[in-house]
Amino acid sequence: MTYRAPLDDIRHTLDSAAGLSGLLADGTFAGLDAETVASVFKGAAQFAELELAPLDQTGDKNPSRLEGSTVITPPGWAEAYKSFVAGGWSSLSGPEVFGGHALPHVIASSAIEIWCGANLAFGLCPLLTQGAVDALSAAGSAELKKRYLPKMVSGEWTGTMNLTEPHAGTDLGALKTKAVPQSDGSYRIFGTKIYITYGDHEMASNIIHLVLARLPDAPAGTRGISLFLVPKFLVDGDGTLGARNDVTATGVEHKLGIHASPTCVMSFGEKDGAVGFLVGETGRGLNHMFVMMNRARLDVGMQGVALAERASQRALACANDRKQGRTARTPAGDMATIVEHPDVRRNLLMMRSLTMAARAICLATARELDLSERAGDAALRSAAANRAALLTPVAKAFATDTAVEVASIGVQIHGGSGFIEGTGAAQHYRDARILPIYEGTNGIQAIDLVMRKLPLDNGKVAAGYLAELDATAAELMASNAPGFARVGTQLAQANTALRAATVWLGLQFKDNPDAALAGATAYLRLFAIASGGVYLGRGALLAARPGSANATPSRQISLAKFFAEMVSPTADGLMRNITEGSDALLLADAGLFAV
Amino acid sequence: MTYRAPLDDIRHTLDSAAGLSGLLADGTFAGLDAETVASVFKGAAQFAELELAPLDQTGDKNPSRLEGSTVITPPGWAEAYKSFVAGGWSSLSGPEVFGGHALPHVIASSAIEIWCGANLAFGLCPLLTQGAVDALSAAGSAELKKRYLPKMVSGEWTGTMNLTEPHAGTDLGALKTKAVPQSDGSYRIFGTKIYITYGDHEMASNIIHLVLARLPDAPAGTRGISLFLVPKFLVDGDGTLGARNDVTATGVEHKLGIHASPTCVMSFGEKDGAVGFLVGETGRGLNHMFVMMNRARLDVGMQGVALAERASQRALACANDRKQGRTARTPAGDMATIVEHPDVRRNLLMMRSLTMAARAICLATARELDLSERAGDAALRSAAANRAALLTPVAKAFATDTAVEVASIGVQIHGGSGFIEGTGAAQHYRDARILPIYEGTNGIQAIDLVMRKLPLDNGKVAAGYLAELDATAAELMASNAPGFARVGTQLAQANTALRAATVWLGLQFKDNPDAALAGATAYLRLFAIASGGVYLGRGALLAARPGSANATPSRQISLAKFFAEMVSPTADGLMRNITEGSDALLLADAGLFAV
Repeated sequence: MTYRAPLDDIRHTLDSAAGLSGLLADGTFAGLDAETVASVFKGAAQFAELELAPLDQTGDKNPSRLEGSTVITPPGWAEAYKSFVAGGWSSLSGPEVFGGHALPHVIASSAIEIWCGANLAFGLCPLLTQGAVDALSAAGSAELKKRYLPKMVSGEWTGTMNLTEPHAGTDLGALKTKAVPQSDGSYRIFGTKIYITYGDHEMASNIIHLVLARLPDAPAGTRGISLFLVPKFLVDGDGTLGARNDVTATGVEHKLGIHASPTCVMSFGEKDGAVGFLVGETGRGLNHMFVMMNRARLDVGMQGVALAERASQRALACANDRKQGRTARTPAGDMATIVEHPDVRRNLLMMRSLTMAARAICLATARELDLSERAGDAALRSAAANRAALLTPVAKAFATDTAVEVASIGVQIHGGSGFIEGTGAAQHYRDARILPIYEGTNGIQAIDLVMRKLPLDNGKVAAGYLAELDATAAELMASNAPGFARVGTQLAQANTALRAATVWLGLQFKDNPDAALAGATAYLRLFAIASGGVYLGRGALLAARPGSANATPSRQISLAKFFAEMVSPTADGLMRNITEGSDALLLADAGLFAV
Repeated sequence: MTYRAPLDDIRHTLDSAAGLSGLLADGTFAGLDAETVASVFKGAAQFAELELAPLDQTGDKNPSRLEGSTVITPPGWAEAYKSFVAGGWSSLSGPEVFGGHALPHVIASSAIEIWCGANLAFGLCPLLTQGAVDALSAAGSAELKKRYLPKMVSGEWTGTMNLTEPHAGTDLGALKTKAVPQSDGSYRIFGTKIYITYGDHEMASNIIHLVLARLPDAPAGTRGISLFLVPKFLVDGDGTLGARNDVTATGVEHKLGIHASPTCVMSFGEKDGAVGFLVGETGRGLNHMFVMMNRARLDVGMQGVALAERASQRALACANDRKQGRTARTPAGDMATIVEHPDVRRNLLMMRSLTMAARAICLATARELDLSERAGDAALRSAAANRAALLTPVAKAFATDTAVEVASIGVQIHGGSGFIEGTGAAQHYRDARILPIYEGTNGIQAIDLVMRKLPLDNGKVAAGYLAELDATAAELMASNAPGFARVGTQLAQANTALRAATVWLGLQFKDNPDAALAGATAYLRLFAIASGGVYLGRGALLAARPGSANATPSRQISLAKFFAEMVSPTADGLMRNITEGSDALLLADAGLFAV
C-alpha cells in the first residue's frame, strides 16, 4: 500500500489544535457525535487507500488530454469519480437543504487531506465543486440554488472557478471577459479564461462554471466585475439537461505536475455567446468569489499537508528498504538500512514535524471557520471569523511551502532512484510545486497577512492570538514532564521574536509600507513557526495527560521536541531579517533588477 | 537570448574569492596572462550562448533514448558536440603532453559553469571525460596513457565513470562486478553498472569506460576493488579502432530532469567478457577513482552554480516582463511589472546572493586545488590540498542545495506559468534536483565534512580557515565605507556561531559520534553561510577599493549587504540545532522510524 490515511495523527491534531472533543461535547457541532466522525474517517480512509491511491501514478503517466473539444481523463478516473459520488463523499459539507451532510470544516478539511494525500490530481475536482457550491449558496438566487445545487452537492455535476485571463493573473481588476444582458434576464458571456482546473471532462454529466465577467457599462477595475453561472449543458426548469452551451475547452496545459488534473483554456462565446446567469449583485462578483476563495485557500493548505504526508510515507518506506553503509551497530558483512543513519532520521523527523505543524495550523484555521458559522454567540462568531481571516494566509502558505520542502527531502532520501520517474518521489516533487502558486501565490498570502490581517481590529486580533501562543509556552515551561520545560523555553523565544516583528511591522504600515512588504514573507514564516511549535507543544501536553486517549503519545511528544529544537530556533533569524533587513532590499543597486 | 554567461560576476568572484589577479601576477599560473583568460572566457561565452543554450530545451523535450543497443541523443546534440571538440573546448584542462591546455582549475571551473549554465545536460558529457582523463593521468600506465589520453583530451573520445551497481549506491564496498585475468595481461569484465552518465551515444567515435571491479581472489570490501579501462571499441597499437567490445547499454532511465543526458544501465560481458585493462594497482581502484571523484564533486558544485545562475536570469527576465498589481508609483490605469514589488525583489536578491556565494565557495575551492598542484613551496601545496579537502564537500553541497532552492524560487516568480512546461522554469526545477544527489549525496558531504575534514591535522585546517573568516569580518567592521561595518558585524556573528558549533562537534567525535552525525547537515550549511558571507564581504571590499577595475561595484556591495542581513542571521539558529538539538533527534520515539 503506497498511502495509509494518517488517522491517528489527524485525530490527535483535531483534538490538540482544533479542540474537536470540546466542540462535540459543547454542542457547537449539534447532531454530530464522535462515532459518526470515526465512521466518516474510516470510510474515507478505505476509499482513499483502495480506490484513489492506486490511480495516483496512473494519472501522472496518463495526463488528461484534449480530443477535439473534449477532455479525456486518465484510465480509471471516471469510474473512481462515479464511486466517489455513489459513496456520498461529494456531499460531506454541502448544505443539508440541498442534500449535503453539512459536516463542519474540521471534518471536511481532514477528508480533503485524505483524498488529496491519496491522489492530489483527483482530489482537486470535488474541491472545485465544493467551492462553487459555497459561492452559489452564499450569493445565488433561490431559483439558481434550487436548479443547480442539488446535483452539485451530490457531485453528479462538478463546478469550476473561472478567474484568470491570459493577461491577468493575481490582478483580477484587469480582466476583460464580457457579459451582455439579454431580454430574458440572462446574459451572454464572451471571453477566454486560463488555468481552469477540471474546466472540461466527461466524469460528470454537467459542469457548472462560475465566471467573473464585466457588464458592458461596468466601471474599470474590480468594482466592475460580476459573477455568472455558465453551465456546460443548459438545464431546463425540471432539471433535465438541454442544449450544449457555447463554452468549450480549447487547450489543456502541459504541466510540471498534477498531470491528471486538466488545466484548461476555456473559451466562452465563440459562436453566439455562452448563456450565463448572474450570481448575486452586479459589480460584487469579486466579493462573491472571495467567499469561495477564502475557503479554497484553506483547502489548498490541506493539499499541502496531504502531499507532505504522502511524500513522508514514501520516504519512510524507502528508508526502511534501502541499504547503504554501516552504523556502529551493523553486523559484520551486512549493510545498514538507511533509516538507521542519524542524518536520514533528521530528514524523516523534519518531514514529519513540518507536516504535523502544517496540519495543526490548517485544522486550527478550520476550527475558527466552524466557530464563525456555528458558535451560539455573535461575538464569538465574529472573533472566530477574524481569527480565521488571520490564520488563512498562514495555513495556505506554510502548508504549501512545507509540501515543496518535504517532497524535495523525500527525493533526497531516495538517492539516485528518487530522480528516476516511477518511484513516485519525483512525482510528489513535481506535483507539490503548484501549491505555493495557485489560489494566490504565497507572496500574496504574506502581503495579505501583513497588510490586511495584522491591522484587523486595530491589531487586537493578532495580539489575542499571540497571547495564546505565550500561554502555551508558559504552560510547557511549568510542566514537570521530562523535557517539556525546555520545549516551552524554545517556543517562548520564537514567540518573542514573533512579537518583536509584529510590533516593528505595526510601526511601518503607514509611513514605510515598502519596509513592511519587504519583510512579509519572512514574517509569515515566523508566524507559522511560532504557531506550529505551539500547536505541537499543545499536542505534547495533551499526549502526556494522564489517561490520554492518544494512541501514540511518545510520537507526539518527540515531534514537539524535534520541532522546538530544530525549527523554532530559526525564528530569531527571521525576526532580524524583518526588522533589520529591509534597507538591504529596498536600497539595493537598481542594476540587480534590470535585464 | 535565454542565457548570458555572467562574465562580470565570474571575474569579480575570481578576483575576490580566488585571488586570480595575484596568482597571475606571482607566477603560480606561469605562462598564463590576463589577456588569455579574457579571450578564453569570451570564446566560451559565445559558444555557450549561441550553440549550447538554444539546445537546452530541445534536449529536455527530446530525451536521449535507446534504439537497440545504441543511445540516440537529441536533435542537434552530435553537431554541437563536434563543434565543441573542434573549438578546442574539450581540452582546456587536459595535460599538455597529451594535447591539453592545462588551464588552472579556477579557469576550467568557470568554463564548466558556462557550459552547464547554457545546457546542463550537454555539459555533463565533457565533465565525465575530464574526470576519466584525470584518473587515467594519475594512475594509468605510460602505455595506457599514450594510447588513450590524446583522443580523450581532445574530446574525440568521451569517458565515463562506472561505479554504482543495482544493489550498491554510495556503499561501493558492496559492488560485485568481476574482472578475470587473461594470459595476455588484460582482463575480462563481467557485471552490470547503473546510473552511467553518457554510458553510450554516437557523438564520439569511441567511449572509454573506467570501471570498478573485483579480481576473483580479491578480499571483500573496498580493498578488493580495482580500476579498469574498458573501451567501447578496442584500440590497436597505432590508435585505430578495432572490434566492438562486449559492453553495451541495456537501458536508459526515464528521469525527472536532465533528459538529454543518457543515464545508462551498462552491461559488461554478456558474451565472452568485456576486454579491460588494469589502471594503477590492484586493490587500489577506489583510491584511483577518488582522484576523479574529488574534482568531480567540485564540478558538480559548479553545475549547481550554473543552474542557479540560469534560473536567476530566467526569473529576472520574467519579473521584468510579467505585469501584476500596482505599487505606489504605478500610473493610474496601468499595472506594475512584478519586479517592482518588494517581495519579488527579495526573491530575486535571494537567488542572486545565494548564487554568488555558491560561486565564491566553489572558486575558492578551485584556487586551493590549483595551489595544491602549482604552488612553488611544498608546505603551501600541502596546506592548499588540506584546504581544498575541507572546502570540497561544502562547495558541492551548498552550491547544489542552492540550485534546488533558487530554481524553486524561479518557478514561484513565474506564477502559474512557471508550472507550465515550456517556459523553462519548470525544467530548471527538475534538472536541479539531481545535483544534491549524485557524486555523493549532500548528506554524505556533510558527514565527510564533519567526520573526516574537521579532524584534518588535528583541527588546524579548519581553525586556520575560521581565522581568515574572522579577519575579513574585522576588516569590514573597520571599514569607513557606508554600511560595511554593519556587514562585518553580521558576518562576525555568523562566524562566532560557526566556531561554537565547530568546538562542540570537536568534543563529540570520539565519545558521541551520533551526536556529531546528527548535526552534520546543519553544520555544513552553517559553514557555507559563514563562508559565503565572508566571500561576498571580500567582494564588497574589493569593489569599493579606489580605482577598482570592477565593472559593477554597487551590485557587488548590494549583494554582500543583502546576504549579511537576510542569510547570515540564520547562522545562530543552525548553531543551536547542532549544539542543542541532537537529543531531540537521537532519542526520538522509535515508532517514527518504523513503517
